[in-house]
Amino acid sequence: MNMTTLKPISTLISTLALLTIGAPQGSAGDPLASWNDGPAKQAIVEFVRATTDKAGPKYVPPEKRITTFDNDGTLWVEQPMYTQVMFAMDRVAALAPEHPEWKTQDPFKAILTRDREAIAKFSLADLAKILAVTHSGMTVEAFEGIVKDWFATARHPRFERPYTELTYQPMLELLKHLRANDFKTYIVTGGGQDFVRTIAESIYGVPPEQVMGTLTKVKYGYDKSGNPTLVKLPEALFINDKTGKPEGINLLIGRRPYAAFGNSTGDQQMLEWTQAGDGARLMMLVHHDDAEREYAYGADSKIGTFSDALMTEAKTRGWIVISMKRDWKRIFAFQE
Amino acid sequence: MNMTTLKPISTLISTLALLTIGAPQGSAGDPLASWNDGPAKQAIVEFVRATTDKAGPKYVPPEKRITTFDNDGTLWVEQPMYTQVMFAMDRVAALAPEHPEWKTQDPFKAILTRDREAIAKFSLADLAKILAVTHSGMTVEAFEGIVKDWFATARHPRFERPYTELTYQPMLELLKHLRANDFKTYIVTGGGQDFVRTIAESIYGVPPEQVMGTLTKVKYGYDKSGNPTLVKLPEALFINDKTGKPEGINLLIGRRPYAAFGNSTGDQQMLEWTQAGDGARLMMLVHHDDAEREYAYGADSKIGTFSDALMTEAKTRGWIVISMKRDWKRIFAFQE
Repeated sequence: MNMTTLKPISTLISTLALLTIGAPQGSAGDPLASWNDGPAKQAIVEFVRATTDKAGPKYVPPEKRITTFDNDGTLWVEQPMYTQVMFAMDRVAALAPEHPEWKTQDPFKAILTRDREAIAKFSLADLAKILAVTHSGMTVEAFEGIVKDWFATARHPRFERPYTELTYQPMLELLKHLRANDFKTYIVTGGGQDFVRTIAESIYGVPPEQVMGTLTKVKYGYDKSGNPTLVKLPEALFINDKTGKPEGINLLIGRRPYAAFGNSTGDQQMLEWTQAGDGARLMMLVHHDDAEREYAYGADSKIGTFSDALMTEAKTRGWIVISMKRDWKRIFAFQE
Repeated sequence: MNMTTLKPISTLISTLALLTIGAPQGSAGDPLASWNDGPAKQAIVEFVRATTDKAGPKYVPPEKRITTFDNDGTLWVEQPMYTQVMFAMDRVAALAPEHPEWKTQDPFKAILTRDREAIAKFSLADLAKILAVTHSGMTVEAFEGIVKDWFATARHPRFERPYTELTYQPMLELLKHLRANDFKTYIVTGGGQDFVRTIAESIYGVPPEQVMGTLTKVKYGYDKSGNPTLVKLPEALFINDKTGKPEGINLLIGRRPYAAFGNSTGDQQMLEWTQAGDGARLMMLVHHDDAEREYAYGADSKIGTFSDALMTEAKTRGWIVISMKRDWKRIFAFQE
């Protein structure tokens, strides 16, 4: 797309949106400028209004304003493969010279020979083996460095941009808008907590202490110089997915969210748990229905499955399904 | 003590302290009024000055200002027995009518017959049995209610006051002073996370999301009406003590503290981990040496053991040992 041509149009659209829904007092522009007018945007605006209106019946005091966001497919791209798995496969390739045995050992062999068919068929046990060799045996600081280095150079196969640019602009605006209204924004991801923490602050403005993810064990000890270390072990402590999400929220936060955002069957229980609280609650699911600007997938996808049962539950319970195609003016900041 | 007589003297002391150490700009009085002048108070004042001085070499940006506090024996009384164990024993008595078999079954029998000698000899396995029957089988909300009800009526055997009043006034001032300087104050306790969360906000101003404790599993499910529930299970997930403390800090916070406060061997690794960071770091241990106003115990105590090895490590590493007798003007608010 030609950005020079599009910019004035996008400015015009923003201006029209402002006139239509009205900007919050004191704001210089529409905080949700990348959202098209419609039930999704309206639900967000109404939720924030109701929970921050001191005189209203649905007022929520600032310290209780907790919101939780799934990460993969909700805040950033998860196709053709979860970013963390992309990282792990690149790490297998980088570590291969130290492991000549991998040349003949699955699942490593499949990665090293770029056998897409075999990779597509990886079992959970295969993934566990890959995660074990790439996500353990180093200190937490060393792992952070490895992940940051990877993000600095890795590029997404389709968009040919750093993964850190493949965040959804409307969701970034939503995070910011909620924080501007004294909501705490938490990430509650099936991905690894350590992995997501490395970039959550710089790309989402979410500090490490507000990231709950799948937990692997760490072991406190001392290095050769006697300095204390926390070393990552190849053992899971807690799986933060499906029923694990409300359990993980209880662990990290100890309060029930007032709003929860997801995109797949892994988020169903988090949304149920959120809705079961009293007062105003907002439950939203991002639906990937825009093959042109991003991807279109749902019930048949292994990654980010949006099952028919989830769609039925969303309709029954009044959860808002966000259509990327219809509700989002743009998907990525670079598409402006 | 006669409070009317003492009040003018305490005011005079506060005034003298103000003249001696100088109040922070804009403060109406000494924020650490219950601390006697000396190396402990001086270390706190200097730490806060150095880390908040924008022009100084030890400046710490607000988002990184993390501090961690042990709870039992550091923020409140842990003698003659941990408050949570007191709670559990009272719960055994309350639940006994539903469990006639406990009359002849140890460790329950010992509690029901108030057999102090047997209670004093309880093993970890005994404690685990007691915790299992008193801390699981209910929803997290039901447990919160049970704990709050208990705190409303239970009294400490020596001080004959609610346990929530047995917090150390100098430490409350320290928590407040740190928060006034944009430090986040976390509790990192060997006690149960759910238990401590019920009262941490009201007595310490520490919200649930800033309490890390020993974790037991919870299970997401649905009640008879189909409403989602989180039910507490009788299984430990993570023991937040000794090496578990830096591991638990990594789990809940994901950042290294700049200051850490403890009182026993269970806190040693947390202080080591804190000190191993660069820049200004503050490590302090409360030493219980005041039998008159509170308790005097150390290496020989089963509860809150302050071993000779810990004292040696404190001296070697330059950790500040707080003498309750020498450093604290008063211990409890009611002793004013």
